[in-house]
Order: sequence, then C-alpha cells, then structure tokens
Amino acid sequence: MKKKEIDAVLISSVPNIIYLTNFSYFSTDERDGFLLVTKKNQYLITSALYSHAARKFSARFEVLEAGAGKSFSDILKEIILKEKIKILGIENDNLKVTEYDRISKNVKQTKHFDLSSLRILKDTDEINLIGKACEIGDKAYSQVLKKIRIGMTEKEIALELEWIIRQTGAELSFKPIVAFGPNAAVPHHQTGNDKLQKNQCVLIDFGVKYDNYCSDMTRTFFFGKATGSQKKVYDTVLESQQKAIEYIENQLENNKKPISTNVDAIARKFVTDAGYPPFNHSSHGIGLEVHELPHISSSNDPLENGMVFSIEPGIYLPDQMVVRIEDLFAIQDDKLIPLTHSPKELIEI
Amino acid sequence: MKKKEIDAVLISSVPNIIYLTNFSYFSTDERDGFLLVTKKNQYLITSALYSHAARKFSARFEVLEAGAGKSFSDILKEIILKEKIKILGIENDNLKVTEYDRISKNVKQTKHFDLSSLRILKDTDEINLIGKACEIGDKAYSQVLKKIRIGMTEKEIALELEWIIRQTGAELSFKPIVAFGPNAAVPHHQTGNDKLQKNQCVLIDFGVKYDNYCSDMTRTFFFGKATGSQKKVYDTVLESQQKAIEYIENQLENNKKPISTNVDAIARKFVTDAGYPPFNHSSHGIGLEVHELPHISSSNDPLENGMVFSIEPGIYLPDQMVVRIEDLFAIQDDKLIPLTHSPKELIEI
Repeated sequence: MKKKEIDAVLISSVPNIIYLTNFSYFSTDERDGFLLVTKKNQYLITSALYSHAARKFSARFEVLEAGAGKSFSDILKEIILKEKIKILGIENDNLKVTEYDRISKNVKQTKHFDLSSLRILKDTDEINLIGKACEIGDKAYSQVLKKIRIGMTEKEIALELEWIIRQTGAELSFKPIVAFGPNAAVPHHQTGNDKLQKNQCVLIDFGVKYDNYCSDMTRTFFFGKATGSQKKVYDTVLESQQKAIEYIENQLENNKKPISTNVDAIARKFVTDAGYPPFNHSSHGIGLEVHELPHISSSNDPLENGMVFSIEPGIYLPDQMVVRIEDLFAIQDDKLIPLTHSPKELIEI
Repeated sequence: MKKKEIDAVLISSVPNIIYLTNFSYFSTDERDGFLLVTKKNQYLITSALYSHAARKFSARFEVLEAGAGKSFSDILKEIILKEKIKILGIENDNLKVTEYDRISKNVKQTKHFDLSSLRILKDTDEINLIGKACEIGDKAYSQVLKKIRIGMTEKEIALELEWIIRQTGAELSFKPIVAFGPNAAVPHHQTGNDKLQKNQCVLIDFGVKYDNYCSDMTRTFFFGKATGSQKKVYDTVLESQQKAIEYIENQLENNKKPISTNVDAIARKFVTDAGYPPFNHSSHGIGLEVHELPHISSSNDPLENGMVFSIEPGIYLPDQMVVRIEDLFAIQDDKLIPLTHSPKELIEI
C-alpha cells in the first residue's frame, strides 16, 4: 500500500478475502462481504447473516454489519471520513460498476490493486493443503476405477467420483469432466448420458477442494483393449509430459530458472514432432482457485520456489479420442515436487 | 431498447443469458460468455471452449470466438463500428470495472439496462419447471426422512439429501442447510458435524434446480417428542404462514391486488401477537435464481399473475430452537397455487 501510495484497500474477491482472513463463509455468487484494510485497521463489512460467525471466527478484524438501516456504502463512507482516506485501492477485475459508482464518489481517487499476484508464491502450509487435496483425489480415483462397469453413463461415473470425495468431508474444486471416446474431443463437452461401451477410451478430469485449496488431475484409461495406434497416442502424451518435467528439473539442477512458456512448448513440440496436432489446452497455476497465477502457457516469467501448477499435455483427435494427462507440481527448495501420484502407465480395465 | 434509446445491449449476467438464449453452459464464476443484442443481430461472444457447443445449440444467435488472437473487446469493437452503435446498454450490477473500462471507450455512452425485471413474470412453461423442481424436492424430503437415525451429523443428512436429488439427474439450487436444535438460530450456521440426539428439533432448508429453474423449501420436524411449548412454537409458525396465504387468497378473490410487503408483515404480526420475537428472514421471488424479483418483504408493489415466490415465516429462539416453514407459490389466473406439497403438520420421528 505504501509503495503504491494507497491509503486503504477494498477487497471484494472471495478467494482474496479467504487468503487474507481465512474466513471462508462468503459465496462467490452473492456479494456477502467486503474486507477493508486501512493503515490502522482491518474491517470486514458484511450482513447480519454472517456477522455473528465472522466475530466468532477472529478478533483480528473488526466486523461491521450492513443492513436495511445502514448500507455497505454508508459504512464505507463513515470509515473513509474517519480515517481520512483519499486514495482507495480497489480490485477492478472483481468490483462491479454499480459498486464502483457508489464507492468512488466518496474518495478522491481509486487505484487498481492486484492482490492475486501475492498468491503466486505459496508457503509450506499452503502447498501441504494442496498436497492433501491431491492425496484425496488419488485415493478417490483408484476407488472409482474399481466401480466402472459396462453401460455406466458419464454422469454416473462423475457422480460416483464426487460421492467418494464428498464422503471424506472434502469438496469438489470444479464439476468433474468424464468423457467417453470422441466426446473428449468436443471442447467443453458436458458430461452426459452416453453409456460406456467395450474398448472405449475414458477421460476423467477432476479436482478436490480441501480446506479451501484445490487440486486438479486428468487421467485417461481404456475400458477394454487399446489398439496399437491408441497405445502410441497414449505413450506420446505421457512422454511429452515427461519432457516438460525433465526441462524444469534440468534447469533447477543447473541453477537456472525454468521459463513458464517453455513447459507447454516443449510438450507440444514433442506431440507435433510425433505427427499429431498441437494441443490448445494449457497448463496453469492453482491454489485457492483452480486457475490462478502463475500463467504457464503464454508467459516468459520464470517458475520459482513456492509456485504450484499443472502440466497437462494432450492429443486431441476429433471424432476419435483424446488422451490428456495432467498432474500438479510444486517447486520447493529448487526441486520439482509432484503432488499428484496416481499411476500413469496405460491402464486397461 | 427503443424506449430507452439504446442501440444495443450487452448482457453479461449468466441467468439473464440463459433466460434469453436457453444456452446454459456458462459458469457464473468465470466470464465465459457475453450476449450482444443489437437492432439487427444477436451475437454470443465466447471462447473456443464453448463456441462449438453454442453453435450446435442454436442458430438463433451468431457465435463469435474470442481467443489469443482477437480478444472479446476487439470483437465487440468491430461490431460497434460495423453497426454504428452509439449508446450501449450494460448491466451495471454485473459488469466489472475492468470490463467496463475496455468497453466504454468504444461507444459514445453507456446506459444501465435492467433485464432482471423482465424475469419477474413467469410464463406457464417456467412455472411448470419450478413446479417440477418442487416435486423432486418433495419426493427427496420424504425419502430423507426415512433415513434419519440417531447420531447422524448435519453434514451426513445434507449429503444424503443431495445424493437423493442428484441421482434423479437434477441439481441443487443451493447448498442445503441442516441445523439441529439451537444451531438453527445461529445466522448462517454452517451445516456441521454435530450428532443428532433424541428429542432434538431439526431444520432442513434446501432447493432443487431442474432445467435451470430453482425450488426452495424449509421444513422443521422433531426427532423424538416435541414438548408442549415446542408444539406451540410450531403451530404458531404454521398458522402465521396460513394467515399470509389467506391474505393473498382473499385479495385475489375480491379482485384486489395483494401487496408484497403485507405478506411477511401479516405473518410477523401473528408471531409477535403470540408473544414471540419478530423474524428477520424474508420471503422472496424465485426462478432462474434462488433469490430474484419480486421483492416481497420491503416492497409496496402488488403481487401479479406470473409471479413465483416463497412464504417463509419463522420463530427464532436463540440458544433453544428455530421453527421455519417455507413454501413456494405462484399466482396464475388470479389464484394462489402452492408449488411445494410436503406435509406441514408437526412431524415427530
């Protein structure tokens, strides 16, 4: 705040509120709460629905209750006057125009304040929580494999997987994708009512949310026997991921910083060199959100200690099949640490 | 648009996009798609992830694909130039500041355009879908009652209920609330790990989403025996809801329009006249969203044919118990039609 010459920051994005307060009751759809950090105080402005829980949760921030008598903007205005706030940091990419109109008239100036970049480097506790989410995902995947039978629909498999995860007390980090055969090549295929047939390829892309932190993993397996050309596709994807992993490991071993964009580029080149079309899908950072910083695919920034991200190459053959293999990794102590551990050799069940 | 002197409208809210297009693939968290309605055309601007599905879905709108080469704002700018759009309607309460900054520089003027008020009156098809969601909810509630055993946690009951609903192919319209005894009096109590004990009062507030339309229902029952004073609380809430229902019915029968704010006020007066504290909770409109227009609690607007809303009085006794009874109703052909049908007499199981 000092560096940016800002008197206070208004945080409206729920993942950023969780990051700064650990208070995770607010929903992302409704505008339930705002965090205002001034030079002297931290205020959590929320409705009667949440104020009780927020006060009980922590004394680190002062909970102010907005309601019919006093609106959120009234409360904000009072603090602005009391603490003589002239320049207010806001999250432009989260704040809505209506909210901005109400707020901006009470301060001299607003400045965009990007908190998400603070979250790019994770501490050990955060990496451990992501690791725990991955571990729950690994177990759920091995359990769901045992339940797969001919004639099951994509939806049934997705629901079974969700059920296994939710019974542990964890949540999903996103709606699982289950796609049979060529369905996986349809961009944003909706997991549906197609029935599993013999000798079909199955793609499962899912994630777990554990104590607010997300995992994300994709596996592709064969229900029945893979043909020779299908095996070649699978092995190419697996090897392309291995090339990307080796690139990062080699750089780190040689005290060089791996460059984000190279990760997907190396895997993609391996795929196209083998005669397959290049994939569009891109690897991504992960944490409190499934997609967050660091940008991997299109950034020339280096990958650093504390970053957590996916590596997820694939081969997309429209009307035929898709193989995608996605794992999560962290960089810690200049080493690349795999967080997902489900087997990657070709599985035929 | 003509009346408001607007050349085109940019719709960014997902429920409003669903309302106008029936295309329901976009998530509310990510900014996956925008609908632009001009005087001549309807454009759906989205990424490669959704463009395939959107084109397949309907030919009524032209699907334009934003990506690395051409951003969403680039596409919008092209259309603005081509169709000579000067005044653009936007959804101020949905559009983010960053998006507004990118868009507003390409037009002469932006005007707030409120589409949500279009959704206040439902047609028969919409009411039937809400009715179907209610019917699934009624069945799920009767099934979950049979599964309730001593020692079950609030979370386990909520998950069981969700499982019953999801197995029908429907979704939840919101995360179910299950609260034992005094927990229900904690505003926004998080459904947790307390175990069900003998002679406890149980509150279940849940909803189903069927083909994008939402239901919402609350029931309170006793696990074991209710005491005399507990029965009195229950009967008072039930009767207060009946008073609100009778008010609407009487007005309609006499060709008078029921006034929104009277609905909760009548139930609240009945509760306070019986010596209990007034409830804060308020009845609400429902449709593509769980809370939408009409405003019930604080509006002097009349309730009209085509409106769908909850009536949900309650008695909140901190540290003791809460009884809330919530049902959905539609007004059709000047009659009040109940959409939820789960039994309301006091249940002891």
